[in-house]
Amino acid sequence: RRTGFPEVIYGESKTAEQISAIFRRMMEHSDRVLATRVSEGKAESIRSDVPEAEYHPIARTLSWHRNKPQYAPDEDYVAVVCAGTSDLPVAEEAAVTAEMLGCRVERIFDVGVAGIHRLFRRLELIRGAQAVVAVAGMEGALASVLAGLVERPVVAVPTSVGYGANFQGMAALLAMINACAPGIAVVNIDNGFGAGYYAALIQQNRKG
Amino acid sequence: RRTGFPEVIYGESKTAEQISAIFRRMMEHSDRVLATRVSEGKAESIRSDVPEAEYHPIARTLSWHRNKPQYAPDEDYVAVVCAGTSDLPVAEEAAVTAEMLGCRVERIFDVGVAGIHRLFRRLELIRGAQAVVAVAGMEGALASVLAGLVERPVVAVPTSVGYGANFQGMAALLAMINACAPGIAVVNIDNGFGAGYYAALIQQNRKG
Amino acid sequence: RRTGFPEVIYGESKTAEQISAIFRRMMEHSDRVLATRVSEGKAESIRSDVPEAEYHPIARTLSWHRNKPQYAPDEDYVAVVCAGTSDLPVAEEAAVTAEMLGCRVERIFDVGVAGIHRLFRRLELIRGAQAVVAVAGMEGALASVLAGLVERPVVAVPTSVGYGANFQGMAALLAMINACAPGIAVVNIDNGFGAGYYAALIQQNRKG
Amino acid sequence: RRTGFPEVIYGESKTAEQISAIFRRMMEHSDRVLATRVSEGKAESIRSDVPEAEYHPIARTLSWHRNKPQYAPDEDYVAVVCAGTSDLPVAEEAAVTAEMLGCRVERIFDVGVAGIHRLFRRLELIRGAQAVVAVAGMEGALASVLAGLVERPVVAVPTSVGYGANFQGMAALLAMINACAPGIAVVNIDNGFGAGYYAALIQQNRKG
Amino acid sequence: RRTGFPEVIYGESKTAEQISAIFRRMMEHSDRVLATRVSEGKAESIRSDVPEAEYHPIARTLSWHRNKPQYAPDEDYVAVVCAGTSDLPVAEEAAVTAEMLGCRVERIFDVGVAGIHRLFRRLELIRGAQAVVAVAGMEGALASVLAGLVERPVVAVPTSVGYGANFQGMAALLAMINACAPGIAVVNIDNGFGAGYYAALIQQNRKG
Amino acid sequence: RRTGFPEVIYGESKTAEQISAIFRRMMEHSDRVLATRVSEGKAESIRSDVPEAEYHPIARTLSWHRNKPQYAPDEDYVAVVCAGTSDLPVAEEAAVTAEMLGCRVERIFDVGVAGIHRLFRRLELIRGAQAVVAVAGMEGALASVLAGLVERPVVAVPTSVGYGANFQGMAALLAMINACAPGIAVVNIDNGFGAGYYAALIQQNRKG
Amino acid sequence: RRTGFPEVIYGESKTAEQISAIFRRMMEHSDRVLATRVSEGKAESIRSDVPEAEYHPIARTLSWHRNKPQYAPDEDYVAVVCAGTSDLPVAEEAAVTAEMLGCRVERIFDVGVAGIHRLFRRLELIRGAQAVVAVAGMEGALASVLAGLVERPVVAVPTSVGYGANFQGMAALLAMINACAPGIAVVNIDNGFGAGYYAALIQQNRKG
Amino acid sequence: RRTGFPEVIYGESKTAEQISAIFRRMMEHSDRVLATRVSEGKAESIRSDVPEAEYHPIARTLSWHRNKPQYAPDEDYVAVVCAGTSDLPVAEEAAVTAEMLGCRVERIFDVGVAGIHRLFRRLELIRGAQAVVAVAGMEGALASVLAGLVERPVVAVPTSVGYGANFQGMAALLAMINACAPGIAVVNIDNGFGAGYYAALIQQNRKG
Ligand SMILES: Nc1ncnc2c1ncn2[C@@H]1O[C@H](COP(=O)(O)O)[C@@H](O)[C@H]1O
Ligand SMILES: Nc1ncnc2c1ncn2[C@@H]1O[C@H](COP(=O)(O)O)[C@@H](O)[C@H]1O
Ligand SMILES: Nc1ncnc2c1ncn2[C@@H]1O[C@H](COP(=O)(O)O)[C@@H](O)[C@H]1O
Ligand SMILES: Nc1ncnc2c1ncn2[C@@H]1O[C@H](COP(=O)(O)O)[C@@H](O)[C@H]1O
Ligand SMILES: [Mg+2]
Ligand SMILES: [Mg+2]
Ligand SMILES: [Mg+2]
Ligand SMILES: [Mg+2]
Ligand SMILES: [Mg+2]
Ligand SMILES: [Mg+2]
Ligand SMILES: [Mg+2]
Ligand SMILES: [Mg+2]
Repeated sequence: RRTGFPEVIYGESKTAEQISAIFRRMMEHSDRVLATRVSEGKAESIRSDVPEAEYHPIARTLSWHRNKPQYAPDEDYVAVVCAGTSDLPVAEEAAVTAEMLGCRVERIFDVGVAGIHRLFRRLELIRGAQAVVAVAGMEGALASVLAGLVERPVVAVPTSVGYGANFQGMAALLAMINACAPGIAVVNIDNGFGAGYYAALIQQNRKG
Repeated sequence: RRTGFPEVIYGESKTAEQISAIFRRMMEHSDRVLATRVSEGKAESIRSDVPEAEYHPIARTLSWHRNKPQYAPDEDYVAVVCAGTSDLPVAEEAAVTAEMLGCRVERIFDVGVAGIHRLFRRLELIRGAQAVVAVAGMEGALASVLAGLVERPVVAVPTSVGYGANFQGMAALLAMINACAPGIAVVNIDNGFGAGYYAALIQQNRKG
Repeated sequence: RRTGFPEVIYGESKTAEQISAIFRRMMEHSDRVLATRVSEGKAESIRSDVPEAEYHPIARTLSWHRNKPQYAPDEDYVAVVCAGTSDLPVAEEAAVTAEMLGCRVERIFDVGVAGIHRLFRRLELIRGAQAVVAVAGMEGALASVLAGLVERPVVAVPTSVGYGANFQGMAALLAMINACAPGIAVVNIDNGFGAGYYAALIQQNRKG
Repeated sequence: RRTGFPEVIYGESKTAEQISAIFRRMMEHSDRVLATRVSEGKAESIRSDVPEAEYHPIARTLSWHRNKPQYAPDEDYVAVVCAGTSDLPVAEEAAVTAEMLGCRVERIFDVGVAGIHRLFRRLELIRGAQAVVAVAGMEGALASVLAGLVERPVVAVPTSVGYGANFQGMAALLAMINACAPGIAVVNIDNGFGAGYYAALIQQNRKG
Repeated sequence: RRTGFPEVIYGESKTAEQISAIFRRMMEHSDRVLATRVSEGKAESIRSDVPEAEYHPIARTLSWHRNKPQYAPDEDYVAVVCAGTSDLPVAEEAAVTAEMLGCRVERIFDVGVAGIHRLFRRLELIRGAQAVVAVAGMEGALASVLAGLVERPVVAVPTSVGYGANFQGMAALLAMINACAPGIAVVNIDNGFGAGYYAALIQQNRKG
Repeated sequence: RRTGFPEVIYGESKTAEQISAIFRRMMEHSDRVLATRVSEGKAESIRSDVPEAEYHPIARTLSWHRNKPQYAPDEDYVAVVCAGTSDLPVAEEAAVTAEMLGCRVERIFDVGVAGIHRLFRRLELIRGAQAVVAVAGMEGALASVLAGLVERPVVAVPTSVGYGANFQGMAALLAMINACAPGIAVVNIDNGFGAGYYAALIQQNRKG
Repeated sequence: RRTGFPEVIYGESKTAEQISAIFRRMMEHSDRVLATRVSEGKAESIRSDVPEAEYHPIARTLSWHRNKPQYAPDEDYVAVVCAGTSDLPVAEEAAVTAEMLGCRVERIFDVGVAGIHRLFRRLELIRGAQAVVAVAGMEGALASVLAGLVERPVVAVPTSVGYGANFQGMAALLAMINACAPGIAVVNIDNGFGAGYYAALIQQNRKG
Repeated sequence: RRTGFPEVIYGESKTAEQISAIFRRMMEHSDRVLATRVSEGKAESIRSDVPEAEYHPIARTLSWHRNKPQYAPDEDYVAVVCAGTSDLPVAEEAAVTAEMLGCRVERIFDVGVAGIHRLFRRLELIRGAQAVVAVAGMEGALASVLAGLVERPVVAVPTSVGYGANFQGMAALLAMINACAPGIAVVNIDNGFGAGYYAALIQQNRKG
């Protein structure tokens, strides 16, 4: 069954050896394993130990399922929406995380407010989701706009994309926290994992 | 039926006359009406115009239902948890908002981490909720602790309760955004309305 | 002729007597006089001295023209756009200022991104302007969205409307400075006067 | 005709290969192409693919025109003014951008307020512009001084030049936002592109 | 003799009775007494006790000399320069303090950078001073401009005059600390007393 | 006897040669020597000069005792508690410092609030200490929770572990300063040395 | 016996009636009761209900002992040290709190670093304490200087005394957290209660 | 004669070749030349071109005098005082700058407040100076303490020495701006050049 939570390894400050060892150990006791913040270099070395693990170079995750989930065509889904190509690593981290927690995920990328018509073209798909992850850097307006347009919970992830008075994502975080539409809550800057996890928690409710 | 959203009036910068007029108009087209941030003074004058409206002096809300909802004993619920008496207005605003959106609400108040055993005594009830609103000021640790203890989505509301290096709630907001446990997302300081609304959105998913 | 700049009095920290005296003196040497940040109380007392001055209670301005300008129906104009009713004082200050500098002004109010369809209904009018003043508080997303939708310069004014992590308008200011679409520049929080003045400078270019 | 907007590529996080490919593709559909934030290393490699592109090592831009614009001697122009040599990259990015958008540009460099007589010697030229881009780091006083001296719109660009309590340009940004003279609006720190684009929008008004 | 330091009472949080008592006691042991931050109300009540004390309503100081100083026409002096009328209380506090410490003071007021020609008309007088106190709010550019124009030490005092992203004078303080010209040092926001005292210390050096 | 303070060298910006020389000199006049912030590289080179010194690679300290202290089984102790593996270097710096100042130390690691039951399993040991050092990054909630659970002084050390709106430990520092339980005081971010020193000062009181 | 903790009421947001009721109830079950942050107005009304309670108008505390403690002349003590008269309320809150927790307290007031000789005259007394509470506003240097001079733990309390770039005590808090001498830990701005409590915890260790 | 100002080159962002060329050119027209922020690497290469230039490796300055100044034993002097070895580069930059401007300089180093007796041993020498440069990082208390102890102007330089909540020198800057003793003014973080220049301006007054 697809519900339940996989074990998750935060790879940031761990060595390839440490990640390999933990990953292997978890594979014995769990149906799914996820490691986040794994650099390409580490991934290569880990995969020579754990060839079953799949690496997602954009999300920088390593993941493994005992049995790949199959989704019905009308299965509920989480929508992961992002503004520009620089936000992709965070958006993909959210998407992969939600998938590892058993959710079908629809990716709606490159729909920033600088070209808002692209967002409107995908609106139907976004509105159909059980929960929407909105990933945006710079001024983070995408999340506010989405909260005004959809009736499901929006999980907003500010990214550190930007420069100058952006303060590594703080401008986007403040904008999202102050969104004028209700139906939005915020996780830490660049915390794609946290957003994917949260969206999955929301979606699981339905099945519980 | 209890789902669907009531009309909501943000009372902060509106006069009693304005609120009365909007409230009455909404009562004609809607099954439920909610006004937030209504001071005791304004409420008194509004209720002489709209005696059907019920005033909650702690939440500072005025609300009206055409038909009071009835809940089955095993009905899903939202848990609203808060630390101290100073956080009550925000917690009650969240609770009343979620109720107006059709949710049964369980209030678990006065369970701050300074006396963590009180929190543990109520844990069963909190864990049974579909979504948990965690309201806390000062260092906001209650939200982190809850996220570690429950498996449902935690909606964290920092309050402006505190002084000195608290920066009117910013210390709590930062703490909640940086929570080490996943399963938590954050709304603006003192935004009980936003948290109650978000928790109700999560809970409604289940019914949809 | 309508170009040229009126004398402007910043009323904030001046007494009614001081404003009256300066206003009268300017009326002798100039065709138009403008005083900003004049409270209702001061205005009343000034108008008993200077009954020719017109008071705009929302903009909190006092103004006087020797000859009211007449505009052709196809005259260029400045669009002043704002999100909610709380932003009106700043938006009106911008509009009145631009008018005093000789611009026709179109007001497009109450078109915040929480209900973005209202903005789209007025888009034609906004796009026809020579310059667009975008007034918004909370997360200030309206300005970004406008910059993406129009091809004329957008002058963004953050307002201090909001609470909590809004920091009296700083969240909106940062959002506007970080807007992902080009074609936007920013003035100080609540500086409706500066924005109206700047938009008029842009529009006057055309006539010079 | 020189009006209309070129396609612009933001080179910061793109590889040389990516920039080459986009650049080439755009050359087919457009009269002018601009890529900003292109390092010397990338530029060299791109130019072996796209020898028609011109590299400006200070502005760090690559640009291409199907037909170089010719300007009449009395053609309107944008003035780009900057304080010191460290501000040159930002000033040149603004200048090249405005040129790519069809504006004649006059460069008035090295006129910081520490030696204000140099600024006064060039004042006639600055006052003759349709729009003035003011680029300054450290305390950013140049922009305020210019706004007091010229009657055209000043587009102020804070730069990250400075150290200590400069906060990577935040001190200059705050100074510019608080300028005591009207007629000034501000873009993000180091955003020469945004300022050149905005000045060009202002100048184009005149032609429209 | 005029050198030597008077006793100074910081009146802010003292009652009229307390100030009276300290003032009287100091008059017995000292040649000069100064009290700062004395409101008009307190001053009136203190002067009924201490009629010898002179009140300066703008500087909000009470002062007393046993023998009024006489200055030769070519006596060295401190220049106190300020931008606008809102900065006057701080500028006068600086001027009165320097006078109480035995300095001749020249006041050059209302010479902000928004109308820089007024500053140039008074430049000769400013340049002749032993030390220059520069008082400015908003973006504080006056201090930088002065440091570039004079060869004596400039003591910069940011004031809390301004609004929005001014942060009660912090924008001006940061600008002054980052001034691009050398020859400038900064005291706390609104600290006219500290600046007048420091300028007097500098001037006294000459006599020592 | 174990009381009294060792000489301490702050190794951060010193070369291996400098540290060696100071260390050796101190060994002649003192019973114990401690050097902190010594990288592995420097340590190796120092130990070829001073082979008596013991290196702790996690704490990054070099230490030396003339006579290793022996503790009775019921000897008072300092508890050093930390949340996660990333906090270990700071926690170990605190522990080694307290040991060098003559304290028995109990280490209780990996007991963060995300898995609070692990903390409760070790509570008896923590409560038995004379002073508790609480080391935590991210939102720093561990320190608040401990202050509520123990009756001895808690010395809280925020660490720079975290990302995004953590601001290199500032979020944890603010949380700890605002802790709702009394009995807690805070040292600088990552200042394990300061915390270990302070805890030892507290414990020594008992012996004095 | 004097050890053990009294019940403490935080009076800030409670009515006189609430405080009276809680105070009375506590008097039945406890040997000592303390209420902090009680305004003069409330105190008067409470004391008509609870005449046994003693009011300290500077500390703004109400306290009651069943039996007043008697101290031997050589009894250990806590030193409470402060800089200026404006810091007195915080210093007295610390002193009264420590007394209520059973400590003898020595008050060493008005020894700020602007007149450091006064501090040196009282140094013997400060050095003899078991713990030192250092209360200071403005730049908070007193705490650093004390930490360098005494060998006991210094509990530093920043106060909100100051203006301008003091940020309501944040400047002092940062200074204390960054003190160059070890042996210092910090509580929240104006938190005299927390400091007195912490000092008492340290002193009690000795007796345990 | 020693008064008058040398030409100064800010070496930070200039190449060795650029510095060499400017240095040489200045040597032709001036009696003294100073270049600051010159790294050891650049200095070596410059000195092969300009062997007459003297390099100070700690101050990171290159300087040249046509005739070395000779001072009488009772010549006025500037005192440069600093806390620890990490502050030396800033202190030496101040000292060399003041020397290049014609001042005799006394260096009083390593007298931080953590060991305040060392400061008192050198107090006579400091008090004898015409102006005192106080260089300190961490909490910057040295500057306050000095302002309380000497009667000459103190020029305070915060340094970026410190970590954690020091914010690269901002904690020291705020402390110095808020100093409780008058007679102190502040320059930017690490701005040894500005402080030396300012102290020299003060001292030159005396000679004028
Ligand atoms: N207490 C509150 N805090 C934040 N937003 C609120 C609150 N109450 C109502 N709102 C929002 O304000 C909107 C109504 O605003 P208005 O039209 O100005 O009355 C509602 O749709 C809600 O989204
Ligand atoms: N230097 C720059 N700074 C900020 N924005 C830029 C810059 N250069 C280009 N842009 C914007 O980036 C957009 C292209 O982004 P991209 O599609 O990622 O290449 C352009 O349309 C511009 O609006
Ligand atoms: N306006 C002022 N701003 C800052 N400090 C002041 C001011 N006036 C007086 N002082 C300082 O406050 C000291 C007197 O403080 P007090 O003993 O509290 O009256 C004087 O010696 C001055 O150093
Ligand atoms: N890790 C550390 N963090 C902060 N301060 C330290 C540390 N290690 C040593 N110190 C302090 O630095 C002083 C020695 O500094 P120094 O003379 O520069 O080696 C010691 O007396 C300690 O007070
Ligand atoms: Mg929505
Ligand atoms: Mg959880
Ligand atoms: Mg646009
Ligand atoms: Mg102008
Ligand atoms: Mg100068
Ligand atoms: Mg405790
Ligand atoms: Mg000590
Ligand atoms: Mg002094």
